Amino acid sequence: MADCLCTPTRVLLGRGAEDSLGEELRKEGAGKVLIHYGSRRIVENGLMKRATDQLDALGIPYIALGGVQPNPRVALIREAIELGRKEGVDFIVAIGGGSVIDSAKAIAYGIADRSCGDVWDFYTKARTPEASIPVGVILTLAATGSEMSDSSVISNDEGQLKRGCNSDLCRPRFALLDPELTYTVSPYQTSCGTADMMMHTLERFFHPGPSFSLTDDLAISLLRNIAENGLKALEDGEDYEARKNLMWASSLAHNGLVQMGNGGRGDWACHQMEHELSGMFDVAHGAGLTAIWSTWARYVCSADPARFALLGEVFGLSRTGSDTEDAESAINAFEDYFRRIGMPVNLHELGITPSDEEIDLLAEKAVFFGKRKIGAFRILGKEDIKEIYSAAR
Amino acid sequence: MADCLCTPTRVLLGRGAEDSLGEELRKEGAGKVLIHYGSRRIVENGLMKRATDQLDALGIPYIALGGVQPNPRVALIREAIELGRKEGVDFIVAIGGGSVIDSAKAIAYGIADRSCGDVWDFYTKARTPEASIPVGVILTLAATGSEMSDSSVISNDEGQLKRGCNSDLCRPRFALLDPELTYTVSPYQTSCGTADMMMHTLERFFHPGPSFSLTDDLAISLLRNIAENGLKALEDGEDYEARKNLMWASSLAHNGLVQMGNGGRGDWACHQMEHELSGMFDVAHGAGLTAIWSTWARYVCSADPARFALLGEVFGLSRTGSDTEDAESAINAFEDYFRRIGMPVNLHELGITPSDEEIDLLAEKAVFFGKRKIGAFRILGKEDIKEIYSAAR
Repeated sequence: MADCLCTPTRVLLGRGAEDSLGEELRKEGAGKVLIHYGSRRIVENGLMKRATDQLDALGIPYIALGGVQPNPRVALIREAIELGRKEGVDFIVAIGGGSVIDSAKAIAYGIADRSCGDVWDFYTKARTPEASIPVGVILTLAATGSEMSDSSVISNDEGQLKRGCNSDLCRPRFALLDPELTYTVSPYQTSCGTADMMMHTLERFFHPGPSFSLTDDLAISLLRNIAENGLKALEDGEDYEARKNLMWASSLAHNGLVQMGNGGRGDWACHQMEHELSGMFDVAHGAGLTAIWSTWARYVCSADPARFALLGEVFGLSRTGSDTEDAESAINAFEDYFRRIGMPVNLHELGITPSDEEIDLLAEKAVFFGKRKIGAFRILGKEDIKEIYSAAR
Repeated sequence: MADCLCTPTRVLLGRGAEDSLGEELRKEGAGKVLIHYGSRRIVENGLMKRATDQLDALGIPYIALGGVQPNPRVALIREAIELGRKEGVDFIVAIGGGSVIDSAKAIAYGIADRSCGDVWDFYTKARTPEASIPVGVILTLAATGSEMSDSSVISNDEGQLKRGCNSDLCRPRFALLDPELTYTVSPYQTSCGTADMMMHTLERFFHPGPSFSLTDDLAISLLRNIAENGLKALEDGEDYEARKNLMWASSLAHNGLVQMGNGGRGDWACHQMEHELSGMFDVAHGAGLTAIWSTWARYVCSADPARFALLGEVFGLSRTGSDTEDAESAINAFEDYFRRIGMPVNLHELGITPSDEEIDLLAEKAVFFGKRKIGAFRILGKEDIKEIYSAAR
């Protein structure tokens, strides 16, 4: 089986990238645009006006809908789909971070869905999306990599569920990455973003089957740069090079590059366990991931200690000759790093203390009520998941 | 100014990738295909039949035209354009290496050219291509990266000229990369390919303006993997991992990834000097590049010795504290490596001994008869170029 990489997103990286919005929409032949966003911050700081001025200048009509929350809710998405259909929207511009982009992707599936069914079906896997209207992005938060990825993750308050849908159909047509737009991202969100892109790389690093040295090397370079520049951005939020590094790293960590030749898929158990935490407790995605990762790592490490040992290169650790020892050192180094950027390394530090009953329910949801197992580097059933959640408390 | 990356090529990497040809053409809606190739080797070894069987099974009509030479000639391209127009070809499948793909791209520009002018005009920059019919690739030689790149380079026997044309229009729609198809590539061609992809990375590494650490790190990882796996493929032509590494590296070295954030362009003086050598002496591209590179490097090194010193990481050199010394060590290490894989590091080793008059003519052609200078890391005029050619003898 050949691995596939498909990254059609046209990326502009650098100061003023957002000023190409009009030109990109013109090239794409956008007829009517929905501008989708989160808080009113982009209205207050003038970014919205800089965007709409470009559409006005080209005579491209648009409507705007904000209010996307972190862990974007399907309720707003359903509303946007109805609005978009009524208004004849044929292009969505997401201005924001991963939540806004993921919400935009869901809306794009919904508007293009000829059956007019419920968009949530795509996220429960009851149906597979067959079409999408195009999406473009002005990124304001470096984290999820949704600006180039095939992935969209949304939440449903009904059942406290967080579910993802992957399809090349939803990869954005263009992504405008101006590092200066992330200067005002708070230290906490900078850390969550740093953690998120490290985890996207790590999830792919732990794949089943033989490894491909070129991709491993690229992944380690990526992790090292994320780690170094995450610290720099925390020291000085207006460090242009650091913000630029994180912005481009977020895209590369999730566009598929670091899984190419490694079987084309990763482990993703930590993501699946985090989705249940977010669904139940509405935690920040990056923080939810680091709160689980080292416990997961120690639980599965024996499957291939050499793989974990290799990760020591990210932090320049020297090798002792024992893979098991070096694996433990590498896991400790990641844990130390996460703590250094203020990220939790267990559920207590994440601020939640799930009861045994809650842990049972979290595990039950993670295995889709008995319908699946999770993980690929090491496959995990409900009992494994319960043990990991418990040990992470 | 923001840097732009646009890599729409759908890449399949792994054993049997070529068996997806039919499926990819179906997805693309190909109506009538021109299969373009070089020598009859692909007919004799059965690859052609494996390709055409897939088209036959789907009822996709096709014609085939072989005979592409290294340094593909515009004469064959003109013939193919006429044939393609007459036959109503709307998709070209290139089966081969860089020469075949570059020839296919030129044909694709020509068939789509409404003015029906001479395709050579796009390569002299007299005209800019405005359209292209789509191209897909089955790769049989890892070297030029044309399978993902925006570049096409062809030769004209009239005037002994070799010229390139760059446009996102010509990026292939898909690239099918089966490492096993390169098992029979000769040691000499394996070395030329290894050199070519290293040079594509190096040309981009030497850019004007400030550097971007993430891209620098990825470039160094790429160079290290190319160097290691070039040696392995020479030791054992059927080393799957080595062939896979080289195949994917050839694409990454030339698809734009390793210039992202570094101003989006590189130096390219060595390529331009090599183009004139190839035009006049018909040398192998990779060998022509290594025959020039170290002389160029020493000539321009003083512009930024630290940049050359950084390259020592490719070969694990330790630093002395002096950028100038470390730069010279890094250049020497590249020279040693090129010699180790049997590549020339001067014109004599390349097998040519241009006279002073020929060097004057080479330099005159390189500056387009006084119309341009070359290089960007350090800009070179005709006298500089003459000095480099002379010192490289």
